[in-house]
Amino acid sequence: MAVEKLSDEERKSWLDALDGWEMAADRDAIERTFKFKDFSEAWAFMSRVALIAESSDHHPEWSNVYNTVEIALTTHDADGLSLRDVKMAKAINAL
Amino acid sequence: MAVEKLSDEERKSWLDALDGWEMAADRDAIERTFKFKDFSEAWAFMSRVALIAESSDHHPEWSNVYNTVEIALTTHDADGLSLRDVKMAKAINAL
Repeated sequence: MAVEKLSDEERKSWLDALDGWEMAADRDAIERTFKFKDFSEAWAFMSRVALIAESSDHHPEWSNVYNTVEIALTTHDADGLSLRDVKMAKAINAL
Repeated sequence: MAVEKLSDEERKSWLDALDGWEMAADRDAIERTFKFKDFSEAWAFMSRVALIAESSDHHPEWSNVYNTVEIALTTHDADGLSLRDVKMAKAINAL
């Protein structure tokens, strides 16, 4: 099934509602940085994100340094942001 | 307990023996990229590294994109590479 890039109207309506996420400076992706008390808490969060990623077959580009987790979401099949990224960002925010 | 940066002799003897790790281009750190079959395998590896990190209280700077895991090791308390990084790189290689 083809994955379509978000249209201009969809961007306006969906991205505005995504608390804490911002457009990446250099590509069609959304990013958010999460801070935790320590590595243990950051890892617990990452483990929950990993389960979401695997079960939805949509995987983040992410990095971790001790208590900080940076996540970027984009859809390679759409060559940019798709509804899959919006859904995943919402699911991550709900954790 | 103070953590000391590796001396020149220590670098020579320890770093040469670290299979697959290279000096970072822009700072006193070692880096290695690991490739797996898919996200599930990459995540399993990361989970094992997380346990080593937490139990040794020495945490990597790392990123993951689907089946690829990039790890950088350095010791902030030593402002560069220390024996703790060498030990952790060996433990990761042993996985």
